[in-house]
Amino acid sequence: MSIQTAFERLDATSWGIQSHVCVGLDPDPARMAIPDVFEFNKSIVDATRHAACAYKLQLAFYEALGVPGLQAMERTIRHVRDAAPRAVIIADCKRGDIGTVAAAYAKAMFETWGFDMATVMPYMGADSIEPWLQYPDRGVYIVCRTSNPGAHDVQELRVQGGEKPRRVFEWVAAAAARWGAAGKVGLVAGATQPGDVRVLREAHADMPFLVPGVGAQGGDVALASRAAANLDGRGFIINSSRAIIYASKDRANFARAARDACEKLRKEINSALTVSV
Amino acid sequence: MSIQTAFERLDATSWGIQSHVCVGLDPDPARMAIPDVFEFNKSIVDATRHAACAYKLQLAFYEALGVPGLQAMERTIRHVRDAAPRAVIIADCKRGDIGTVAAAYAKAMFETWGFDMATVMPYMGADSIEPWLQYPDRGVYIVCRTSNPGAHDVQELRVQGGEKPRRVFEWVAAAAARWGAAGKVGLVAGATQPGDVRVLREAHADMPFLVPGVGAQGGDVALASRAAANLDGRGFIINSSRAIIYASKDRANFARAARDACEKLRKEINSALTVSV
Repeated sequence: MSIQTAFERLDATSWGIQSHVCVGLDPDPARMAIPDVFEFNKSIVDATRHAACAYKLQLAFYEALGVPGLQAMERTIRHVRDAAPRAVIIADCKRGDIGTVAAAYAKAMFETWGFDMATVMPYMGADSIEPWLQYPDRGVYIVCRTSNPGAHDVQELRVQGGEKPRRVFEWVAAAAARWGAAGKVGLVAGATQPGDVRVLREAHADMPFLVPGVGAQGGDVALASRAAANLDGRGFIINSSRAIIYASKDRANFARAARDACEKLRKEINSALTVSV
Repeated sequence: MSIQTAFERLDATSWGIQSHVCVGLDPDPARMAIPDVFEFNKSIVDATRHAACAYKLQLAFYEALGVPGLQAMERTIRHVRDAAPRAVIIADCKRGDIGTVAAAYAKAMFETWGFDMATVMPYMGADSIEPWLQYPDRGVYIVCRTSNPGAHDVQELRVQGGEKPRRVFEWVAAAAARWGAAGKVGLVAGATQPGDVRVLREAHADMPFLVPGVGAQGGDVALASRAAANLDGRGFIINSSRAIIYASKDRANFARAARDACEKLRKEINSALTVSV
């Protein structure tokens, strides 16, 4: 029997609970309803686990808190394993470096911290991705088309050659598709540019997409969902961080508010997929 | 009086000790002569501080060791401050993310850990760099042209438009030059492609360069030094990690071997600069 890949597990969980929602656990001491990072995350996970197929931890927010932040991250990962064992846990670390260093980063994310998946940067090419693919039951999302205004500066440069003109992020997606022949590679495609998400989906029918940029960043949930879904209405998750975890700053109600926001997002996505366009 | 930038400090230190050598502190338990990461780093720093103008810590190797690794990193940074107060300490973290996240990464590197400089990824554009530039006495090296084979995949794509055809990394360098008007931005340019280092130097006479890829990666020291130097023979540092810190696995002699390798590299660079080409 072959080992189930992280993307297969994610797809099964997503289908099982009928949810494409990934909850972003991005602790910001200035915005959290309670001060303890782990307790905050625990409350969010417990309130959303029935409606979220994945949790994405943005490493910057833990690193900014130093060693105590990383210890809270460790405890959070363990808690998700216990409380939501079918959920997939994603390190949003966007690491990228040459082979020997990439191997150390992959070890950090997959072995030391125990994530299922990680986001990785494509700028240094194939040999910076390859060490991540040595783990049969893990996966990576290649950062391809991001949701921020600066995405324009490099990702949208037009590349010479090929049959038709394509932008850098389209080349990255094509390279990622080659690197990911073993089913261990997906793409990050930001919701703020649903037209580009659609371009990527048309070119890559089966690649898993991680779609950030709804909520605080302004991406339209329905447009992004329809653009990201594959022909079966699957193959993607939509991440929301701030709009869920900071739905309320009220100490007594923040977890319930997060639950409500998570369920609302699940419904919005599912409705968008069932309505014909 | 204006605040001295990290790049001004680096230039002053480099000139003061007549060295362009950056020592890479990349602890690998399988290769270290002694098992304790901090004690290993401390011995290397003490043996090389007279001949190194900068120390570069590759974060992947500390992260792979988990919380104890990051605690050793903290202690190493403190020790460099004490033992080599004029040396500049670089976080080779290659972080890149949207604005709010980049701000958290910058806080992690510059405030929480206390680095002077960091390497950052250009793929997400201007707003992913801007938060790093809010620190008047710190600096960033933008990852531009790297030393690994996979650099070809994205960095060498030919871009349409502009007066003459340029590759992605040349566009990145031009963007970095715009972003770095305040003197807080340099470039990473790998020694394995001295021709491209020269192209970058010709286009950007005054930008500071961080040049990895000599030693284990095979870049030619003399060629890389001549390509990277500005018209005054300054404005660059060459990093060597493995060839210095693992010059010997002999417990009794590894620090002396590191010192010898560091001094040899300093001489090789300085000789290359004084010989007319």
